[in-house]
Amino acid sequence: MSGGRIAVLRLGHRKGRDPRITTHLGLVARAFGADEFYLAGDEDVEMFATLAAVGERFGSPLKLEHVKSPMGFLKRWIRDSGSGVEGLATHLTMYGERFRDAIPQMPRDRDLLVVVGGSKVPAEVFEHCQFNIAIGNQPHSEVAALALFLDEWGGNLDMAEKFKEGRLEIIPAKQGKVVIDHDEES
Amino acid sequence: MSGGRIAVLRLGHRKGRDPRITTHLGLVARAFGADEFYLAGDEDVEMFATLAAVGERFGSPLKLEHVKSPMGFLKRWIRDSGSGVEGLATHLTMYGERFRDAIPQMPRDRDLLVVVGGSKVPAEVFEHCQFNIAIGNQPHSEVAALALFLDEWGGNLDMAEKFKEGRLEIIPAKQGKVVIDHDEES
Repeated sequence: MSGGRIAVLRLGHRKGRDPRITTHLGLVARAFGADEFYLAGDEDVEMFATLAAVGERFGSPLKLEHVKSPMGFLKRWIRDSGSGVEGLATHLTMYGERFRDAIPQMPRDRDLLVVVGGSKVPAEVFEHCQFNIAIGNQPHSEVAALALFLDEWGGNLDMAEKFKEGRLEIIPAKQGKVVIDHDEES
Repeated sequence: MSGGRIAVLRLGHRKGRDPRITTHLGLVARAFGADEFYLAGDEDVEMFATLAAVGERFGSPLKLEHVKSPMGFLKRWIRDSGSGVEGLATHLTMYGERFRDAIPQMPRDRDLLVVVGGSKVPAEVFEHCQFNIAIGNQPHSEVAALALFLDEWGGNLDMAEKFKEGRLEIIPAKQGKVVIDHDEES
């Protein structure tokens, strides 16, 4: 388990083109244990509203923030992630080390920033991040990569505990949909 | 390990709205070991061309097919998946059983169809599929769900062996990009 915060930095968001992919990244970040979601590229108030609404209904909302200078943000995080100590930054890329080899090598006592690229990631990102990690070396999806990375980082944890304060709770079921609305309980 | 084929059925594709999400589903299907990708909803020649191009460059292309009647397709698969025996169908849904509990219960000797919904999945899908499986009971992404399911189904296998016939091969690296083009080898 990590003692620190888990944050995701999404690079190069394009409002017209990427709304659903970036929304999925935010939803995955929250569902798999991240606390903070930073968006670089275009600002996107509607997308943040969608993510905030999920947090309101299901609990454990993300801290959401647009960052103007992702390189400045990344370098600051590595120098001091906000806790007065150096932060850890790992970049997810199909060119990186195998994640199941790399994750056991990663320190657990620091705040973790997971950097998720868009189509063109500057070479600086590879250089500054302490880890460049691949979720398989085949082209697939940053959404899938983020989910597998966070799931493995969290030790395949069942996240139910994290979301127990949510208004809506879905109960695992073999058939149909079982949803508890805790606001409607007498 | 599964002895059978692995296929993915994507329901309710909307060409104008979903191109990137469905493309990511196809890429994830291939990268995590599926053999076949069936698209219901709108036909989408351009998206199939994108998926086919990845298969040409990186090896192990998917069989791609549009299906007009997904319910008919699903019922036929369960009756006979094409191998003369009953097929297995599992629906990925946030309302389902926990995947790490369910996967060990699933038979391994049949062809597997993984059904991935869109926004509104008919109740029939829940009823016909032998398994309804959740990758966590929080809202996130069908792309993430498919990746985690297939990765767990495949036993967290390194897929390098499957793709060794590809023209392009990416070598895992701590820094930068290492790509071998096997067509350019002397």
